Amino acid sequence: MKYTSFSTDDILNLEKDFRSNFVNSLNGFKSINLIGTISNQKQSNLAIFNSVIHVGANPPLLGLLMRPPSVKRDTLTNIRETGYFTINHVTEEIYVRAHQTAAKYDSQKSEFEAVFLTTEFSENFPAPYVKESVVKVGLKLMEEHTIESNKTIFIIGQVMEAIVPTHCILKDGLIDLNLAGTITGSGLDSYHSVRKISRLSYAKPGKDIEKIG
Amino acid sequence: MKYTSFSTDDILNLEKDFRSNFVNSLNGFKSINLIGTISNQKQSNLAIFNSVIHVGANPPLLGLLMRPPSVKRDTLTNIRETGYFTINHVTEEIYVRAHQTAAKYDSQKSEFEAVFLTTEFSENFPAPYVKESVVKVGLKLMEEHTIESNKTIFIIGQVMEAIVPTHCILKDGLIDLNLAGTITGSGLDSYHSVRKISRLSYAKPGKDIEKIG
Repeated sequence: MKYTSFSTDDILNLEKDFRSNFVNSLNGFKSINLIGTISNQKQSNLAIFNSVIHVGANPPLLGLLMRPPSVKRDTLTNIRETGYFTINHVTEEIYVRAHQTAAKYDSQKSEFEAVFLTTEFSENFPAPYVKESVVKVGLKLMEEHTIESNKTIFIIGQVMEAIVPTHCILKDGLIDLNLAGTITGSGLDSYHSVRKISRLSYAKPGKDIEKIG
Repeated sequence: MKYTSFSTDDILNLEKDFRSNFVNSLNGFKSINLIGTISNQKQSNLAIFNSVIHVGANPPLLGLLMRPPSVKRDTLTNIRETGYFTINHVTEEIYVRAHQTAAKYDSQKSEFEAVFLTTEFSENFPAPYVKESVVKVGLKLMEEHTIESNKTIFIIGQVMEAIVPTHCILKDGLIDLNLAGTITGSGLDSYHSVRKISRLSYAKPGKDIEKIG
């Protein structure tokens, strides 16, 4: 197989969109989530993110990276204002509408209405979920870290509520995301469906890995 | 569809392994990468991570979350010692060996040898790549952020070198990860292959999204 090698300078010299597509491919497949928020004036907001990661199970924490707040970012503003946000998995049924939330609507327009997705509120949580989503997580802002290299913001949220299709919860706690219909993404605009290869047994030195499901 | 709702307390009261599997499923599908490092004493190390995210394209930056350094963590120690590490995509051919790197080998044993993967060095970069991988990225440590909520460490690296199969680089810069054979993961032990649904056009208010590939 023939490989092409790019140095930092090669990457910096790429045309802007080419560079963006290229560097966005380097980490592999990404989670695709819709982040739901609401302002103090009760204006809801919805935005697609591909940077949500697991941070810890006890306490339950997720993290996500947000672009620099140099221009107006409603999601970040709302999270700072209210302290709450939701993470909603994207399925093949809603991925085109999810992608459309990336359009630069003005702040008076809710992306929920603009893309025909529905706000859903639970009794105990202030930020809006996406009714059409499958796995829905309500989080409370815990920490904000500014990445000095490019002024992006890494946000940590604690899980306050997780709403999961009952039949997708396996007996050892794993959520069957294939059954739920969650999809994955690559680059900035590429969406992919997922097929399970296998689960693997806990790794120990000198012990062969087994396929466990 | 019937849903089950979990509060923070419900999650904290779950059995430890159940909670770990459950919370690790909440962010959706994850990137699966092997992180290659080497100590100052030239002992190589390889470890599987599911937390690598894109941080920025200009300068090209990736981030990853590492567990707390409360016990010996060779990957973090080596990154701090040398300032360099590699990120290597995992394919269906090597995922069982990749998973086995999670076993707690002692520091004198290289996971490369233990799991039968091969170190590969480029001319201009000190940390080892995985020969059997497809997309390989060499990074320089730029920043380290301690997440106060659970003492995990968020690392930022700048891309110094990206080695990519030539035929997988599309004309607009996106790397065709399906063609490369990169896989994705969920939870802590579940591996999945990926099929492209579609690429979508740039989102603008009032403009319909088109499938572009």
